[in-house]
Amino acid sequence: MNIGIVGSTGYGGIELYRLLVNHPYTDKCILYTSSQGGNLYSDVYPHLNSIEDEPLRNVDEAEGIDIMFIAAPPGVSAELTPKLLNKGFKVIDLSGDLRLKNGSDYERWYKRPPAPEEILEQAVYGLSELNRVNITETKVLSNPGCYPTASLLGLAPLIHQHAIDPASIIIDAKSGISGAGRKAGLGTHYSELNENFKVYKIGEHQHIPEIEQQLGQWMGEPVTISFTPHLVPMTRGIMATMYVTLTEGISTEMLIESYQSFYEQAPFVRVRKPGSEPQTKEVAGSNFCDIGLKVDERTGRVVIASVIDNLMKGAAGQAVQNYNLMNGWDEQTGLRLVPVYP
Amino acid sequence: MNIGIVGSTGYGGIELYRLLVNHPYTDKCILYTSSQGGNLYSDVYPHLNSIEDEPLRNVDEAEGIDIMFIAAPPGVSAELTPKLLNKGFKVIDLSGDLRLKNGSDYERWYKRPPAPEEILEQAVYGLSELNRVNITETKVLSNPGCYPTASLLGLAPLIHQHAIDPASIIIDAKSGISGAGRKAGLGTHYSELNENFKVYKIGEHQHIPEIEQQLGQWMGEPVTISFTPHLVPMTRGIMATMYVTLTEGISTEMLIESYQSFYEQAPFVRVRKPGSEPQTKEVAGSNFCDIGLKVDERTGRVVIASVIDNLMKGAAGQAVQNYNLMNGWDEQTGLRLVPVYP
Amino acid sequence: MNIGIVGSTGYGGIELYRLLVNHPYTDKCILYTSSQGGNLYSDVYPHLNSIEDEPLRNVDEAEGIDIMFIAAPPGVSAELTPKLLNKGFKVIDLSGDLRLKNGSDYERWYKRPPAPEEILEQAVYGLSELNRVNITETKVLSNPGCYPTASLLGLAPLIHQHAIDPASIIIDAKSGISGAGRKAGLGTHYSELNENFKVYKIGEHQHIPEIEQQLGQWMGEPVTISFTPHLVPMTRGIMATMYVTLTEGISTEMLIESYQSFYEQAPFVRVRKPGSEPQTKEVAGSNFCDIGLKVDERTGRVVIASVIDNLMKGAAGQAVQNYNLMNGWDEQTGLRLVPVYP
Amino acid sequence: MNIGIVGSTGYGGIELYRLLVNHPYTDKCILYTSSQGGNLYSDVYPHLNSIEDEPLRNVDEAEGIDIMFIAAPPGVSAELTPKLLNKGFKVIDLSGDLRLKNGSDYERWYKRPPAPEEILEQAVYGLSELNRVNITETKVLSNPGCYPTASLLGLAPLIHQHAIDPASIIIDAKSGISGAGRKAGLGTHYSELNENFKVYKIGEHQHIPEIEQQLGQWMGEPVTISFTPHLVPMTRGIMATMYVTLTEGISTEMLIESYQSFYEQAPFVRVRKPGSEPQTKEVAGSNFCDIGLKVDERTGRVVIASVIDNLMKGAAGQAVQNYNLMNGWDEQTGLRLVPVYP
Repeated sequence: MNIGIVGSTGYGGIELYRLLVNHPYTDKCILYTSSQGGNLYSDVYPHLNSIEDEPLRNVDEAEGIDIMFIAAPPGVSAELTPKLLNKGFKVIDLSGDLRLKNGSDYERWYKRPPAPEEILEQAVYGLSELNRVNITETKVLSNPGCYPTASLLGLAPLIHQHAIDPASIIIDAKSGISGAGRKAGLGTHYSELNENFKVYKIGEHQHIPEIEQQLGQWMGEPVTISFTPHLVPMTRGIMATMYVTLTEGISTEMLIESYQSFYEQAPFVRVRKPGSEPQTKEVAGSNFCDIGLKVDERTGRVVIASVIDNLMKGAAGQAVQNYNLMNGWDEQTGLRLVPVYP
Repeated sequence: MNIGIVGSTGYGGIELYRLLVNHPYTDKCILYTSSQGGNLYSDVYPHLNSIEDEPLRNVDEAEGIDIMFIAAPPGVSAELTPKLLNKGFKVIDLSGDLRLKNGSDYERWYKRPPAPEEILEQAVYGLSELNRVNITETKVLSNPGCYPTASLLGLAPLIHQHAIDPASIIIDAKSGISGAGRKAGLGTHYSELNENFKVYKIGEHQHIPEIEQQLGQWMGEPVTISFTPHLVPMTRGIMATMYVTLTEGISTEMLIESYQSFYEQAPFVRVRKPGSEPQTKEVAGSNFCDIGLKVDERTGRVVIASVIDNLMKGAAGQAVQNYNLMNGWDEQTGLRLVPVYP
Repeated sequence: MNIGIVGSTGYGGIELYRLLVNHPYTDKCILYTSSQGGNLYSDVYPHLNSIEDEPLRNVDEAEGIDIMFIAAPPGVSAELTPKLLNKGFKVIDLSGDLRLKNGSDYERWYKRPPAPEEILEQAVYGLSELNRVNITETKVLSNPGCYPTASLLGLAPLIHQHAIDPASIIIDAKSGISGAGRKAGLGTHYSELNENFKVYKIGEHQHIPEIEQQLGQWMGEPVTISFTPHLVPMTRGIMATMYVTLTEGISTEMLIESYQSFYEQAPFVRVRKPGSEPQTKEVAGSNFCDIGLKVDERTGRVVIASVIDNLMKGAAGQAVQNYNLMNGWDEQTGLRLVPVYP
Repeated sequence: MNIGIVGSTGYGGIELYRLLVNHPYTDKCILYTSSQGGNLYSDVYPHLNSIEDEPLRNVDEAEGIDIMFIAAPPGVSAELTPKLLNKGFKVIDLSGDLRLKNGSDYERWYKRPPAPEEILEQAVYGLSELNRVNITETKVLSNPGCYPTASLLGLAPLIHQHAIDPASIIIDAKSGISGAGRKAGLGTHYSELNENFKVYKIGEHQHIPEIEQQLGQWMGEPVTISFTPHLVPMTRGIMATMYVTLTEGISTEMLIESYQSFYEQAPFVRVRKPGSEPQTKEVAGSNFCDIGLKVDERTGRVVIASVIDNLMKGAAGQAVQNYNLMNGWDEQTGLRLVPVYP
């Protein structure tokens, strides 16, 4: 299997490379860039010295690729995907370009023109654990966003199996700084972010329609959520802390059992025991999503905390998991990484 | 004015010292400890070399003190306060011992015996901006907790002036590690907390009844909240992100104006302009509380983000503010510190 | 006294502002910028909301200033200082433009044209503790670099009072990231620097000739040093670890006594007791320089560790100290800040 | 191959586990502890949930082990190793107990009784790249310390191939906090270490005799070094910055070529190009040692910067590399991990 990575110089790109270079069924991994063509990968990233000393290439010249991963800024995939499909490549897109089925939602939240409608229709949303069959059969996979992955995996069992008030869902999300990418600016400046905890884009983040689209599909009715993202002074990790009003009583223990049973066949989702609370460090460098929850009888709400490594299960890790599924391999292939702790 | 600090070797204690040593109306600042008596303060804390080279004393020998600050672990103040009052000292207590009016609430949430009832009755809750008159007249001041200070200042104008659903209040709180004090353990171990974001004590934190008690008093009915604390890999800073359902429509701009007007006479509370979102670093080392908010018309909720330095407005800074109020001085005396940025 | 700050939007600028706004003999503090004129200071830096809401001005319009602080990038002061002197203002320059007496040294190390020779001659090097008399009398003060301040204060007593091998001096220096300023780039990008320790500009840093110039002056002969700077994943703080071969035996205790006696009249230099090793955090936010040392009998070398806050004693703090000296005030005026710990 | 890990609950232990659980020639990995016997590994370390849910065992009951890794505090291996050898197990010891050939050196620097002389004689020092033949043949391997690994790999080519002044060697070393282990105390307390850079044990660290022993062996004469360790506020990573006086002129380029040639057969040592300076993050999570150097013609010294991940090449990674060598496998087996960046 020959694969390519578009946007290989970004953080999503090098994380894909880290996984794919050791992937047993991947023969060649070709690296593409729009901005640094001709440079060696190891000049852009000296941590790859002696590992990958090949020059970066221009994606226009790509050929002989079975599957192309796109880890590029918004707008790239919308234009590039049709061309790659025409060449006969499959596509796994890590950007937000192909996630919203409705082009006008994309325009509203991303402030740019959407991808062609037929591509949006064709694209399968790659929340691996919840959409295995469709993933297996598609030629265009749209890899979920980091916040949506943590949020949706944390909510899915509740929504599929229990009675809740759909208007009550609140997601308070926190992310490490690598989620902002490698582009330099005050928003990624060390001295501005270090020893600092920030809130941003209250109720305005572009992952909101992505989460609502999936929740709405599961519930069979439109869902509107409160979603507030924050930045944590650390490189990797996301926690989504979620609040949902239960309309029927259930104990913490029983709800945890129900979650464990829901994810029985999902090797990357780990539901924590009662009283055991998730931490982002416990999934760092791995493809796990750890979920803890507690029913608060005083308020009638359940509080769910879901953690992932934003560059792994929130981006490259899930993309490789989907790559495995699309090829009929064990979904853990190349992903049996133990979290790097401490 | 001669003051003393019980628990001077903890983080609350050295922050009090930092403020009081430069306080213009404070003559002497005597340092007490239960554990390290006889040591020089500058041996325990070398950053105080040449500033404070006096030996630490035992509180039993305290005399000639006008006001005693108590910055000790739970349980100390419950026992010590009556003795100090008997000696004719006033008391400013930074612990949680005197905050809950109902001793049985204390027992339930703190798992230890409460302070004597007459002390609890006498103690005035020192949320400076909202309780100025009572603070001025008391001999026993109970300084608010760090999470309650950020939360209550963020909610007060809403609750006093607008129509909300009292059952809807959710507080998602995040704190730097210094809130856990100087005691060593896995819970304060560098390699465990660095590059890590944790949730803890979901719905079980001892600051819950403190917040509910004050909200209930303001609203004239019992209030039950969802409160979830988290730990952020940084030393100082708290953000409380709060979600409240509005029962009448109001725009972000108008609500901000209402907040600004509410805090017109409060020099330490800064309400942010629309679109300007608070960050903990912007109050670091200072006594400010910065509040930002946004009405989300999609959900009918207002999202409020309130930040403080947990050791300043969340502990020592507010204690000094109350000390000023108790003595009839300008509340900013000794507290005109510009945030240390970056 | 009316003062101005050129380069007020940089980190040196806001630290100067933090100190000067509370300085008892400073009436007005006018803020200048080349890039953000017309903006409010509190728009550029929201942590100054309600403290400083004045618009930033263009330095060409400056008038009525007694002393102008220049905290600008290399090259600005070389051009601006003559103009300001002509207007009758005194100048305190925090950049490197006026530090090297020899213009050709400046050209070699800074790769740009030097300031006019008469300005370089006139400028007094403001290492406060070692140059008090000249500082008092000058109209142009060149504030030392951050690395040179830590290094020179750590070496001065040794060089003035003891027999050493001048060719043996090695300075291994470490700095927090704020030393790189507020300009965004990969070199200040959070995810690149966090959890990372870097070496840079080995033997090529522009502070080398500054240190050598002062050492040479003290020793009466040219001195060549090894100097290696590193970046530490923290915002503030510098440590210079220095190695010098002693040509006569002396014990650690006696050498420490000699240092203490050398700095007896220097309130901001604290020489640590034997066995007590300095830490950057113990001077954070303050103007102290803490020095620890140990004679290693096995090697015949003394190892000296000297720490400062790079934005305080390494920049704005020392500039205010010099401002005090230039005006005949106690050098601690406005600088009696206790380190912010933890 | 069945292996065991003594001290599995420490940071060295979990890093060994992370590597060995995915090691292709390792069948069983049994976990031992002295302090937490009976607990599940995943209770002690929840990041191992669903990966390793076996109970921890007591080492006295160990049987059927081919090779035992010991990652325990000082003193354990000195007693345990003879017993394990008697049982017919091979031993790879990560502690300092078996590194110093001379028991009295151990007593002096470690302040405790040494291991039996016959064990010290038998133990082979596992600096993999420099001692391959002996490693292959031994039953007792003493894995090098973290500081010695970074230092010795950085100095080896210089010492083997070039003319230097042996009295001139100075090593200024910096380590992340995980090097201090998981034991809680003020020395590993988050708020004390965060935003702090410390020097410690100047000229007194127990890794000094280890480095001197190996250098002395290579040079054929006793060598005395200056060695100063520091703590960096990050979890992983070591940099050793080293200063050596050259007694014959050589250019940076030629010296780098000589280093590259020296390490031609060493896949884990990467010598950087001229002008490319190492960073700890570029080896994080991997077994690489990156070395950069610069000849400073002004001083006649070479400055060498050598970086490793202290838990990998500085502990568990090198132990697994030696495990591979002892078994005749490719030394990269199970260690082809790309650095986790960013």
